[in-house]
Amino acid sequence: MYVSVSRLRVAPELVDDLVHAFRHRLGQVDGFTGFEGLEVWRSDREPGEVLMVSRWQDRGCFSQYMRSAAHRASHARIPSELQEAIRLERLDHMHTYDIVAT
Amino acid sequence: MYVSVSRLRVAPELVDDLVHAFRHRLGQVDGFTGFEGLEVWRSDREPGEVLMVSRWQDRGCFSQYMRSAAHRASHARIPSELQEAIRLERLDHMHTYDIVAT
Repeated sequence: MYVSVSRLRVAPELVDDLVHAFRHRLGQVDGFTGFEGLEVWRSDREPGEVLMVSRWQDRGCFSQYMRSAAHRASHARIPSELQEAIRLERLDHMHTYDIVAT
Repeated sequence: MYVSVSRLRVAPELVDDLVHAFRHRLGQVDGFTGFEGLEVWRSDREPGEVLMVSRWQDRGCFSQYMRSAAHRASHARIPSELQEAIRLERLDHMHTYDIVAT
């Protein structure tokens, strides 16, 4: 199992729009080989902080998706003002993890 | 749904011991009201970084657990050298999140 965590920052007043965009996402990733789920976590301490957590069978599947047309299509659909805000204050970093115990 | 993420740092050579401790954990939390699961994620970029991710029905259940005898018992069982190492280089911080979309 492989997990990718992206830490997004936007202006606090845009968090609802970002969450709405995730709730109405295109779902391009859903049938992708090795995809096992996506969650969006909203911080209750940092008002503009949102974590996007995706799970994959292994790192290779995640890398395949990141290079895919499906990934490009899902990004192309984000409203432009929102995309701009995310781009400007964007990912601190992207961490990747293995699940070692449950 | 409520998620608590604790970022632990230990010396890289102690990560296997920490993971082992989680794999053989006492399981005190398992029957706790509102507990919905625990995962331990090991970074594949930062050798001494481990994330402990626990899920709860809501923040209240998590807070109850943190004040409980079950929580104290689970900590008391960590081998002392390991506990010392975690205490010294310990949590950067603890973030808490709501899951807003899946």
